Amino acid sequence: MKITVLTLFPEFFDSFRSTSIIARALAKQEIEFETVDYRLFTKDKHNHVDDTPCGGGAGMVLMVQPIADALKSVRTENSYVVLLTPQGTPFKQQMAHTYAGYDHLILICGHYEGFDERIRSLVDAEVSIGDYVLTGGEIGAMAISDAVFRLCTGVIREASHEDDSFENGLLEYPQYTRPIDYEGQQVPEVLLSGHHANIRKWRLKESLRKTYLRRPELLKDRVFTKEEKVLFDEILAEIDKK
Amino acid sequence: MKITVLTLFPEFFDSFRSTSIIARALAKQEIEFETVDYRLFTKDKHNHVDDTPCGGGAGMVLMVQPIADALKSVRTENSYVVLLTPQGTPFKQQMAHTYAGYDHLILICGHYEGFDERIRSLVDAEVSIGDYVLTGGEIGAMAISDAVFRLCTGVIREASHEDDSFENGLLEYPQYTRPIDYEGQQVPEVLLSGHHANIRKWRLKESLRKTYLRRPELLKDRVFTKEEKVLFDEILAEIDKK
Repeated sequence: MKITVLTLFPEFFDSFRSTSIIARALAKQEIEFETVDYRLFTKDKHNHVDDTPCGGGAGMVLMVQPIADALKSVRTENSYVVLLTPQGTPFKQQMAHTYAGYDHLILICGHYEGFDERIRSLVDAEVSIGDYVLTGGEIGAMAISDAVFRLCTGVIREASHEDDSFENGLLEYPQYTRPIDYEGQQVPEVLLSGHHANIRKWRLKESLRKTYLRRPELLKDRVFTKEEKVLFDEILAEIDKK
Repeated sequence: MKITVLTLFPEFFDSFRSTSIIARALAKQEIEFETVDYRLFTKDKHNHVDDTPCGGGAGMVLMVQPIADALKSVRTENSYVVLLTPQGTPFKQQMAHTYAGYDHLILICGHYEGFDERIRSLVDAEVSIGDYVLTGGEIGAMAISDAVFRLCTGVIREASHEDDSFENGLLEYPQYTRPIDYEGQQVPEVLLSGHHANIRKWRLKESLRKTYLRRPELLKDRVFTKEEKVLFDEILAEIDKK
């Protein structure tokens, strides 16, 4: 799995490459990551990559040509090309799984006020990492690269994914570690019981509870198992009592 | 406006500090940014900050003590403390505006499998940058810092915010810059007309169209102005014709 990022700030990714889990996976060649500076592709004699917006307005707009030519230099028939923009499809965990199955993902980062609209015709998808505005697409490209790489074989232990939030459509259950008592706050007794079936059931129930209280829309289209239905009815009754 | 990030990887933020718009604003002291390594606060004799989960399971869980003590060292009565977690409230542009009004924002980054649940009792809010799972909270802290800092006075020109996606509840209108013809794709004529009222109207209509086609849920609770209502009816009629 290889990711190529087209950006005006390749050095922005230095820390990403050299820190923690991603650095280890790159060193073991389990994944590949490269950045391409599309300023190197501009045909503008002053090396500009942007120009004023047609029709007027504040700020500068990225020109088509430098990005189109940079893209041509790295794109193959196995590449999937994503433009980072707040106007794109919201990125979700399921898309991270899809992208992790691709040979080559190309992420295009904007900067300044926006893109020339015609850049959109060059890409396979437009994706947003959330409903907020950033100074450029670089942090979005880092988020997508991180979410995708951690799902690639060998990057983190497989078992670590299974309980991630969103993996089973629910938020993760509460986790605890030592000490058992922290300034009067205790670890729930069931977790210390060693009774695996009860622990599993408690965790499923607390996952359901947290999802219902924080992100009820995630449960809207859920098909509950019989066990989940029973636990969910208990949760509703417990909330009702309060 | 100051942001403090509690993290195990302070060096991860080196590129963020030293690149582009944020670097310039830090140099001009318009904003402050610091990282605090909470590993330095652990009382564990092997310098560990995590331990196995109570009740069993894959991975490691961050202990309360190092984060609690690191937080104590930087928190003042003017601090607002946010824990980055996929289980948190989804971060939105409106929250970036709220945070930009605070004196001091503290962002806590997890890593590994998760936090001890009791860490949640130390914070003012739990926030998620999107429905996907990252190797740690660092990219989320960077996204929030970037979204907040760019709204602070002096960081980017005020006029640049006004047309951002989400600022008026709509996605941004299409932007174009030279050349007028790029491999057969033309800039729309109205943008070259110099007729400001028509350009404004076209942009509003295209903002509405893009929002309707890509993120219809953003229009659900919108109170349309009279002009927007007329334009929106035109859009629906145009889509119907196709």
